Amino acid sequence: MSAPLFSSMMDVPLVIPTILDRLRTLYYEREVVSLVVTGKDEHGAPVPGTHRTTYGDVARRALQLANALQSLGVREGDRVATLAVNSYRHLECYLGIPSMGAVLHTVNIRLHPDQVAWILNHAEDRVLIVENLFAGMVPALRAACPQLEHIIVMGPHAGEGDLLDYDDLIGGFTDDFTFPDIDERQAAAMCYTSGTTGNPKGVLYSHRSTLLHSLASAPKDALDVGERDTVMAIVPMFHVNAWGLPYTAALTGAKQVFIGVFSDGRNVARMLAQEHVTITAGVPTIWMGLLAELDRARAAGEPYDLHRLESLVVGGSAAPEAQIRAFQERHGLTLKHAWGMTETHPLGTVSVLPPHVDLRSDEGYALQAKQGRTVPLVQLELLSDEGARLPHDGHTMGRLMARGPWVAASYHKGEGQGNFIELDGQTWFDTGDIATLDARGYMHIQDRSKDLIKSGGEWISSVDLENALMAHPAVAQAAVIAIDDPKWDERPLGVLVLKAGADAPDHAELTAFLAPRFAKWWLPDAYEVVEVIPIGATGKFLKRELRQQFSAYRAPGATRE
Amino acid sequence: MSAPLFSSMMDVPLVIPTILDRLRTLYYEREVVSLVVTGKDEHGAPVPGTHRTTYGDVARRALQLANALQSLGVREGDRVATLAVNSYRHLECYLGIPSMGAVLHTVNIRLHPDQVAWILNHAEDRVLIVENLFAGMVPALRAACPQLEHIIVMGPHAGEGDLLDYDDLIGGFTDDFTFPDIDERQAAAMCYTSGTTGNPKGVLYSHRSTLLHSLASAPKDALDVGERDTVMAIVPMFHVNAWGLPYTAALTGAKQVFIGVFSDGRNVARMLAQEHVTITAGVPTIWMGLLAELDRARAAGEPYDLHRLESLVVGGSAAPEAQIRAFQERHGLTLKHAWGMTETHPLGTVSVLPPHVDLRSDEGYALQAKQGRTVPLVQLELLSDEGARLPHDGHTMGRLMARGPWVAASYHKGEGQGNFIELDGQTWFDTGDIATLDARGYMHIQDRSKDLIKSGGEWISSVDLENALMAHPAVAQAAVIAIDDPKWDERPLGVLVLKAGADAPDHAELTAFLAPRFAKWWLPDAYEVVEVIPIGATGKFLKRELRQQFSAYRAPGATRE
Repeated sequence: MSAPLFSSMMDVPLVIPTILDRLRTLYYEREVVSLVVTGKDEHGAPVPGTHRTTYGDVARRALQLANALQSLGVREGDRVATLAVNSYRHLECYLGIPSMGAVLHTVNIRLHPDQVAWILNHAEDRVLIVENLFAGMVPALRAACPQLEHIIVMGPHAGEGDLLDYDDLIGGFTDDFTFPDIDERQAAAMCYTSGTTGNPKGVLYSHRSTLLHSLASAPKDALDVGERDTVMAIVPMFHVNAWGLPYTAALTGAKQVFIGVFSDGRNVARMLAQEHVTITAGVPTIWMGLLAELDRARAAGEPYDLHRLESLVVGGSAAPEAQIRAFQERHGLTLKHAWGMTETHPLGTVSVLPPHVDLRSDEGYALQAKQGRTVPLVQLELLSDEGARLPHDGHTMGRLMARGPWVAASYHKGEGQGNFIELDGQTWFDTGDIATLDARGYMHIQDRSKDLIKSGGEWISSVDLENALMAHPAVAQAAVIAIDDPKWDERPLGVLVLKAGADAPDHAELTAFLAPRFAKWWLPDAYEVVEVIPIGATGKFLKRELRQQFSAYRAPGATRE
Repeated sequence: MSAPLFSSMMDVPLVIPTILDRLRTLYYEREVVSLVVTGKDEHGAPVPGTHRTTYGDVARRALQLANALQSLGVREGDRVATLAVNSYRHLECYLGIPSMGAVLHTVNIRLHPDQVAWILNHAEDRVLIVENLFAGMVPALRAACPQLEHIIVMGPHAGEGDLLDYDDLIGGFTDDFTFPDIDERQAAAMCYTSGTTGNPKGVLYSHRSTLLHSLASAPKDALDVGERDTVMAIVPMFHVNAWGLPYTAALTGAKQVFIGVFSDGRNVARMLAQEHVTITAGVPTIWMGLLAELDRARAAGEPYDLHRLESLVVGGSAAPEAQIRAFQERHGLTLKHAWGMTETHPLGTVSVLPPHVDLRSDEGYALQAKQGRTVPLVQLELLSDEGARLPHDGHTMGRLMARGPWVAASYHKGEGQGNFIELDGQTWFDTGDIATLDARGYMHIQDRSKDLIKSGGEWISSVDLENALMAHPAVAQAAVIAIDDPKWDERPLGVLVLKAGADAPDHAELTAFLAPRFAKWWLPDAYEVVEVIPIGATGKFLKRELRQQFSAYRAPGATRE
């Protein structure tokens, strides 16, 4: 009898041109600062220089770029690849390419040229915009990617062959551009998973998901971004849209700082201080470098003035509690844990403390070391191996499932369907993580399911052990992997990189160090010291390689009580 | 050749059950505080008592309400009216009614019963949920509204006839409720315009517009709401969803305080202090009462401790700069201007200062007295009477047009189509306001177009004159209206209410007071002192009545140079 009543609200789509329009009107004076390479020093190392522009100019150039790409034949739905560092030009691509209805495809610059070629071919990119620093890859890519029609180089270059120069190209066009009618579910951007298992898979972000992600990232319990902020995303712009920060900052009018290739501790600290950065974001490796530089500068009596810095967002992999404490207690700086994946755009959770918990208390540090709670519109669920819902009690581990308007429902070309499941008639994404959820919604990643150690039918979290080991004064890095065990199926092995000049602690010492915090049967049966733990293109430990390296390993006299 | 490429993101709708789910899981411990009537004192005045509950309980009761309404025959798309004050029960209606696919229709309690009946009939409400305080209206409404099937009373009541008791009714149902599949464009809530001209018109808010409005309201450059906040919306919940704050606060987990019928300065000040409120919101009249109470308490040596209070959001009509300065300079409290209308859900603009402007400077106060800049996704435009776009230069006045995903495209039943226009193929809402926009997007309401004074072909802003007059030490309230003028067509007349005990300033004194800030021809030709300026049901001056009152008025010896 009754039927749904539809509202009388305007049908205004959530599209990226809306962001571009705000930059042209409200925020045209706000600054965009980039560290660019101005030359090389006597050792061949790049020398940084500061480039300053405004959102008004970035918006104008983004529209010139849209006109230029149209003239090259780029049409709605076409993929345009970028192979570039964080800079104002990359921001122009972020805004201009989706605003013409094309798809911004950001490619990881750290991949081998063969992998880049594979991805360009899989995505069927018609145009590649490449930073001059990576122009050396061009001949190989051109040979391997026959569908690539145009290659545009950002920054000074030799100009060989039919390479187009980015600045020259867009300089030939006006910024008078009429946005096409874009359906908010159209693809705006594309990113490939890091592919630590199997081939990389493409995730297509929509205009809708990008706008919703930006809105949900801005409030104080997420990344807390506004016009008075200065945002420096150190996380690369090829890495899940730099966690969406270039869009969030632009939507809210925050000043942006781009670090280019200069992500070492000294340049990071210098830029944080010089540009009065309030919010920065990166993986734990970056913060390790920054912490060392801050300690050095403090000891040398020349500390950086970072009083404007409100949060260092950390993601990609978990920050050890020791690192969180070190920043807070030695430098008064707050690491803010965020969790997400390529498939979640990425923001899923942020570790903001509840009202009654103090930041510097033990409870506060323990909560900060967790991945946090969902931002609005994201839901998490825990499933058993059999697909049953598990309790949110803070200790039951389960397969972590995610759902939300900016979570993928499939990969490009329908690949990897096993990662998406139906639960009570709804699609959920299987993150591949093993996690706990507590009653208030705090999520804690225990492991990647493929890195999991299953000992005597019970799960052991390698991540927890690694974080604890990294708090040991002699340990610089720690990875805990499974080794085969005839009795328990698998047992943990600790693989350690020592701090410079430190002596290797013995098994008994490390066992005693860990014992207060873990069940006895969790403790590694043995430790091996290595020079380096292999790290993948997105900065994560390549445990697959470690497992191969130690595949024949047998622990000396392992027992389990 | 090319075609749009669609994204691989999940098709998760933006619906109110998402908010309800967050309250059940993440925020179930957060408090909801309501001032309720516990009886009457010896003068017959209501006596306040504090009611405390949690989001967890509110969510449970909202689901019980959904089950109860279903059992009464309420189906998807049906309208359920509320005639209620701000309280936890009203919040349950906000959550439970839309979550079952029905439409929450909040009705203005200050309307005459005939007007209420007209609106209930127009909306075709099947159920009315009425606060016990207004149960006296029920016989008249029942007689006038034959389609009203059930009437539910909130709070203790005599229980006459077939009235249902709210608590008893929902107490008979469980909170086990399966949400229907809701299309995000379905109507969630409904609100009628105040109808100062013609009949009231219904605006239907969608689930999508409610969620987007909540997301856009939360960031620091909007209302700055998060879990650590305590929000007290004094603006009534029948008034454009209390500016969306109950939904924004719930989505972000902020504690909520509801003032019930106790919106006088003393109760407001007491609750702000007692509950450690961080964000409150109301019309200028409320802040006038609060300011008087804060001044009184300060003078009496018993000031309120409001150090947690971060902003007093002011909307509905413009706050005079004198009021903004008084709060800031005498009490260190910041009034934050917001602008919107029933048709804009309502948040359109917020007056947050740009990075380079100091809050306490003259430039800062001048900007704060403007309505501010658009929140993300809202666009404003100025049109001439002929429909041409006008410059955003800070001084050209034009008809203010609004567009955005939470702006109405029509009224219920297709009425009032003249308020919606097509501009370059897009629908825009004609706000009926006359405004300026400057190059950075600051909007300044000059007048309602129907209140406009057009003198010699030029517009005069009555609002600017009123705000300036209210800064005069003898003036409590000021309204400036147009009077007929044989030469200039219209000329301004100042209508004043004096402060208690103040002597009426003469024409020359007021002219000298205004002269430094306005063109000579703007200055009122005459002033009249009245006991009271008529105020409508939403707290705005009823200038229509004033104009009738002074329709035969002729200024003594008016001139224009």
